[in-house]
Amino acid sequence: MKKSLIAFVLAMVLGGGYTISAFAQTKPDVLVRQRQSAMVLIGKYFGPLGLMNAGKLPYNADVVTRNAALLDALSQMPWDGFTEDTKGEKSRAQPDVYSNAAGFKTAQDGLRSAVGKLVAAKGNEAGAKAAIKEVQDACGACHKTFRAQ
Amino acid sequence: MKKSLIAFVLAMVLGGGYTISAFAQTKPDVLVRQRQSAMVLIGKYFGPLGLMNAGKLPYNADVVTRNAALLDALSQMPWDGFTEDTKGEKSRAQPDVYSNAAGFKTAQDGLRSAVGKLVAAKGNEAGAKAAIKEVQDACGACHKTFRAQ
Repeated sequence: MKKSLIAFVLAMVLGGGYTISAFAQTKPDVLVRQRQSAMVLIGKYFGPLGLMNAGKLPYNADVVTRNAALLDALSQMPWDGFTEDTKGEKSRAQPDVYSNAAGFKTAQDGLRSAVGKLVAAKGNEAGAKAAIKEVQDACGACHKTFRAQ
Repeated sequence: MKKSLIAFVLAMVLGGGYTISAFAQTKPDVLVRQRQSAMVLIGKYFGPLGLMNAGKLPYNADVVTRNAALLDALSQMPWDGFTEDTKGEKSRAQPDVYSNAAGFKTAQDGLRSAVGKLVAAKGNEAGAKAAIKEVQDACGACHKTFRAQ
């Protein structure tokens, strides 16, 4: 039992994904990898919605509803990865992430609020498109200040 | 408007996360990056639960409930990234992923079912721990066959 747990934990660590955040110190490079993973997946599930809102893809209420739910989860995930000890890691995080914690938190809340509206729209085209625009603006506003261009 | 959309799409592409899966051909390397990102985050949110079940961390119903909800979303995400055209990409995916699609699907369903039980346990310690064990077994069983050790 003990042996299999150690094997399990080792497998997760070697897999690169393991962390016990909120309980123990997660290594800075793992935190960066985790937060970047969340951003990659936000891109995966937001991308089609941005194109629908711009009329580049046909509007599909089912996809919007599904992706909204996934984005609701994903948009909670990056933020605890921006700890002070990740400052020295290679990433596009700008110094403002660390020096302007309040502003960064406001930007995060802006995304969470916009995604909340997207979920609440329940696939209704007009409401969803307004929320998609708001999510896109929240992404852009945060990246402009807190991510290297 | 059109210009800002193009800038937006470009930013997402350059960010490495962009894809319009289910609508257009996503590049194989992007698919691999997306599916690996999902695995990284499954590790992030499952890790503490595995340690709780093994008595290596104190049981915390709030963390279990929160992580269960996030895992419910994340456990849907990797699978559409294992398309035939990703065969040649560098990853730990084993040939069985492509040659035994039915078996791979059964393994995915095993994880989804176990995560469903974890969500249904609503933080109840006995139920959650049984489900955590089942999730861990589902991870292990799938990795054993479908991922290089």
